[in-house]
Amino acid sequence: MFGVTILGNNSAIPAFDRHPTAQIVTINDQLILIDCGEGTQSQIQRFKIKRSKLNFILISHLHGDHYFGLVPLISSMGLLGREQDLHLFAPAPLQQIIELQLLAANTILPYTLHFHPLENEDVIFINHKLKISCFKTKHRIDCFGFKIEENKPPRKIDKDKVLQYEIPSSFYNNLKEGKNYINKKGDIIENDLLTVPNTANRSYAYCADTIYDEELIPKVNEVHLLYHETTYLKELETKAAERFHSTTIQAASIAKKANARQLIIGHFSSKYEMLDEFLEETKSVFEDAHLALEGITFRIMQ
Amino acid sequence: MFGVTILGNNSAIPAFDRHPTAQIVTINDQLILIDCGEGTQSQIQRFKIKRSKLNFILISHLHGDHYFGLVPLISSMGLLGREQDLHLFAPAPLQQIIELQLLAANTILPYTLHFHPLENEDVIFINHKLKISCFKTKHRIDCFGFKIEENKPPRKIDKDKVLQYEIPSSFYNNLKEGKNYINKKGDIIENDLLTVPNTANRSYAYCADTIYDEELIPKVNEVHLLYHETTYLKELETKAAERFHSTTIQAASIAKKANARQLIIGHFSSKYEMLDEFLEETKSVFEDAHLALEGITFRIMQ
Repeated sequence: MFGVTILGNNSAIPAFDRHPTAQIVTINDQLILIDCGEGTQSQIQRFKIKRSKLNFILISHLHGDHYFGLVPLISSMGLLGREQDLHLFAPAPLQQIIELQLLAANTILPYTLHFHPLENEDVIFINHKLKISCFKTKHRIDCFGFKIEENKPPRKIDKDKVLQYEIPSSFYNNLKEGKNYINKKGDIIENDLLTVPNTANRSYAYCADTIYDEELIPKVNEVHLLYHETTYLKELETKAAERFHSTTIQAASIAKKANARQLIIGHFSSKYEMLDEFLEETKSVFEDAHLALEGITFRIMQ
Repeated sequence: MFGVTILGNNSAIPAFDRHPTAQIVTINDQLILIDCGEGTQSQIQRFKIKRSKLNFILISHLHGDHYFGLVPLISSMGLLGREQDLHLFAPAPLQQIIELQLLAANTILPYTLHFHPLENEDVIFINHKLKISCFKTKHRIDCFGFKIEENKPPRKIDKDKVLQYEIPSSFYNNLKEGKNYINKKGDIIENDLLTVPNTANRSYAYCADTIYDEELIPKVNEVHLLYHETTYLKELETKAAERFHSTTIQAASIAKKANARQLIIGHFSSKYEMLDEFLEETKSVFEDAHLALEGITFRIMQ
């Protein structure tokens, strides 16, 4: 399973029972929280997200609607007795903000919170299943987007064939990487006799808050699922630019030019009660677009 | 109108759709927010509290469930264009916590936020209608309770009499304080010919988070309405003491010994879904007790 669950889709001020930005990415058995607006812990309860599987939190920038729920969440995790490590990737100034609040409450978390400051566009985590990288977006303050990708090896083992050719299991990882096997007699057994191509690595890109910025296109090129903010409808393009936000048409243009497969739009301004026009306008440029409705999970398909 | 509206009644972790501590005291045309747990701005919206009349915020202590909603609230007030001053009374370390977060967001509030650090038991605000004082409670960290009282003069003008005796209106304030009037001829006109006794000053005391502490009794003596926490039912008296919290019976005992007229109980532990037993146990010691249910307003009567 690789998917994105929306916990909050509103911009700055909560309105119409919409909540500030927060999303859960599920990848295999791992949960990753992206942004954490006020009330995220309640949304996590409401949508029955398993806190015990949440080991990564990524914070895009330090406008409150993207992180005011963080200290409440990590405090509650402590009160609930969490022991496993938690990895937090966020702009550097957040570390002091957290430490001051824990100190004021005389709180010592019962688990280790690893703070990883975001600085450059880079891979921030990688293992044999998962790769997370960050990239810069253009907003009023330092702001990062995130790309989360599967990181499977290029080949999959053919179980019958490896038994037939008596390949030791210690060599399987080499096979997955495409290497040939040389047996005791010195015979070369070609990799493609023993393996089949793996499915492509699926990917999700989260563009956080951003002005319309074509420099994003290569950063999110060919992603399976793209989240791009649409704070305003197209008629407010000037206001959007002034506030370093985007419109429907702009989000759709980025998705189209980056050749994304699917688009989620969100971060709706509190001035809009109804959201239908957001979808209509976006679809006029990029057909496979969806509203980031709270509680919905978008599964990323092959 | 003098009353208390409950916005949140739960302890540390939100549960059962109950929210962390926050209350609005309405006194004449003035609103005072006491404590501000996560999500308070949404509760303010939900219960249609007029933000424009909210000029005082009192924070009892720096456990997150009593203030995590504060920076979100003051930020939103800025985004909504507030211009009038706001007075915040809170433990001193909160000032740096707020400043760091505003700085990280590059936010300059469009109104003046006056930070008044709480230090000693003292009157923290007084005018001709209203008096606010703070007192210490015993909790795991520095914690303050608050007493909010009407501050009317002891006498009221008898309009017919002041006309009959031709008292200049510039002397009315002296009359309200009980002074006699001496006219041009040198005649003394006794105050009680010109005025009648005012109604008693009503009072509300909020005991924040506290262990059972008989030192509270003189501090809240004879209040019209008393709020005392009941984190636990009576069977968990030992746990309550360990955590510097109180039980139903303990809250009721304080109310009884202080001769309070009415008692509100709240700050219920997340372990309890049903609250009936809280009320039953409390009433067994102090009859005029009420659950701090969210959305309810308790009017303080003469």
